[in-house]
Amino acid sequence: MNVTIRGRTQHFRTITFDRARNSVLLIEQRLLPHEFKIVAAKNFQETARAITDMVVRGAGAIGATAAYGLAQGALAFRGSDLKKFSAHLEIVYKTLGTARPTAVDPLNAMHQVLFAIAKGETVAERQSLALASAEEFANEDVQHCEEIGQHGAKLIRSGMKILTHCNAGWLAFVDVGTATAPMYVAQQQGKKFHVFCDETRPRLQGATLTAWELAQQKISHQIIADNTAGHLMQRGEIDLVIVGSDRTLGRTGEVTNKIGTYTKAVLAKRHKIPFYVAIPLSTIDWNLKRGFDIPIEERHEGEVLGAWGVTGRQMVDGRWQMGKRTYIRVANPASGARNPGFDVTPPELITGIITPAGIFKPNELWGQRQKLGFQS
Amino acid sequence: MNVTIRGRTQHFRTITFDRARNSVLLIEQRLLPHEFKIVAAKNFQETARAITDMVVRGAGAIGATAAYGLAQGALAFRGSDLKKFSAHLEIVYKTLGTARPTAVDPLNAMHQVLFAIAKGETVAERQSLALASAEEFANEDVQHCEEIGQHGAKLIRSGMKILTHCNAGWLAFVDVGTATAPMYVAQQQGKKFHVFCDETRPRLQGATLTAWELAQQKISHQIIADNTAGHLMQRGEIDLVIVGSDRTLGRTGEVTNKIGTYTKAVLAKRHKIPFYVAIPLSTIDWNLKRGFDIPIEERHEGEVLGAWGVTGRQMVDGRWQMGKRTYIRVANPASGARNPGFDVTPPELITGIITPAGIFKPNELWGQRQKLGFQS
Repeated sequence: MNVTIRGRTQHFRTITFDRARNSVLLIEQRLLPHEFKIVAAKNFQETARAITDMVVRGAGAIGATAAYGLAQGALAFRGSDLKKFSAHLEIVYKTLGTARPTAVDPLNAMHQVLFAIAKGETVAERQSLALASAEEFANEDVQHCEEIGQHGAKLIRSGMKILTHCNAGWLAFVDVGTATAPMYVAQQQGKKFHVFCDETRPRLQGATLTAWELAQQKISHQIIADNTAGHLMQRGEIDLVIVGSDRTLGRTGEVTNKIGTYTKAVLAKRHKIPFYVAIPLSTIDWNLKRGFDIPIEERHEGEVLGAWGVTGRQMVDGRWQMGKRTYIRVANPASGARNPGFDVTPPELITGIITPAGIFKPNELWGQRQKLGFQS
Repeated sequence: MNVTIRGRTQHFRTITFDRARNSVLLIEQRLLPHEFKIVAAKNFQETARAITDMVVRGAGAIGATAAYGLAQGALAFRGSDLKKFSAHLEIVYKTLGTARPTAVDPLNAMHQVLFAIAKGETVAERQSLALASAEEFANEDVQHCEEIGQHGAKLIRSGMKILTHCNAGWLAFVDVGTATAPMYVAQQQGKKFHVFCDETRPRLQGATLTAWELAQQKISHQIIADNTAGHLMQRGEIDLVIVGSDRTLGRTGEVTNKIGTYTKAVLAKRHKIPFYVAIPLSTIDWNLKRGFDIPIEERHEGEVLGAWGVTGRQMVDGRWQMGKRTYIRVANPASGARNPGFDVTPPELITGIITPAGIFKPNELWGQRQKLGFQS
């Protein structure tokens, strides 16, 4: 999407590949929203570290990063011995595949690249197939997000106030995003609307990433505390909710997403506000039979007990001057915290699921499984 | 309640009066939970400033502070001229009464002191009546909270997990608190239970004040993000919700409380978890006819866009060493925020209202108005 730096607007993807330097170029997401910077991962080890250290995060984004990382590793190989090449690739695959142990996207993305590589007969052929396949993976991610945007934009009318939770924006994918895609397309269609971003404690992805994205695209928006949406719904100030998903059960229509999503779905149901989930096909889990079995990651309590931000920022000549990025402890020092990272929203609270193949009721996913890329 | 400082446990009230120095002694709540300090307001102007600057906050606490402040002002008067004394008192009353313009508790508390003063015939008599009446007000606040505790403790069984939101603890009153009172009494009765404190963004009163209180009383507890209770309820990990109230409509049973309370009530209803509101009689509004008419304070957006905490804290020899108290900006610099401070919970979501006079259904308040201190 577009980013404006010192008055100049330019299009960026979250991840691109620099063939000349065999480097993966990434937006350094840990500095956002306070600084916009592109960093280069110069070899596959650095690319894996960028995934581990959350320079890049978000399902689609780490998938594409791993795909490019695998191609990067393949291209770094010198020689023509196919056996040695395969042994080398295995190391690359394992390094990237264990960068975020619970994520499935990097593995799925790399499998797609490995299938493509297998068609090549020489090392050189395989190397170029690896890069072509990684590019294809990234382009497909963008295309899927654009299709989600086309379908979802039909739900948005001028004058609407839309709530979103966490970040399922373009920063979580290669471009466009999922929950944000309908907003970006609706904007292109000339519709005027307003977005409330849940700040999304504890990691504040809404206040930092989603708000930054929307500001860059010049979409009218305001940040709210996670406590506030219920009150706004009660006063008739929210017309539509769109969120993303980290894992959607194809058999039941249950949606796993950032902690707090379930609460918003319960509130939307009470207030008869449409609640939509935008998902790429890669987040559909066709195997699990009930949401209760989805493992919920319990994250470090320090996320709840403190917060990251910048200190001492000042407006100088109409521009913000950076403070120092710092962690503060906000909570009582002698207290601990619970910190589940996700929750599960049952299908009866979900109005529709926006996919690249169209909008479906949660209980229609299984019937549409061929169209939705089901591989038995 | 008890506070342990360097291994020594001592009982404190939030507010006390030092007759010898004619000073109001207050727990400096802005430093909590990172530092415990008693400050002396040496004249009524300083007492008013302590209310304005939120050294002391919470409905009952600022009421008692204003009552003591009025007595303090009365006691500072030199001479025996009743007319001059009255003129002086008027200045004191106005100074304290405008310290927090939207609060009604300081006014109600001072009216009680003024009624008592009127019975005295000399300045000296009136001065001593003022202090006696302020003491009585504070003691009554404590007694009401203890009665709430006695009634509410019946709801708590060993093994329960209790959710609370924001701080309606002893720091918000002279002692004991309202939402926390049942917990403190249940603990005295030997019951073992666990409390989840919503951190309560944006001002984090749950993570700071409630967690500190519970830690000091050695009650098992954990802080959670405001997003988390829905998930815990879904997994059967919450058995009871108790919150406080800033204003309860005696005619309808609607409860105004910290933003986010309504959301928790909606979730509790869905999960059939009892939802109780603990209130002192002073928060009952017998006039307003519908909750929608309660003015909802829109606070400064900086509260949502940032957070207060301490930096660079370190564990040294098993004790936390203070960092520097600081504000960080967490949100995207170019984004704004909405920040309503309160929301309204309708009676159908409330299991019961715990008052000093017993536990009532929300729609029973009006019928019980004589018992609940209704003055027509």
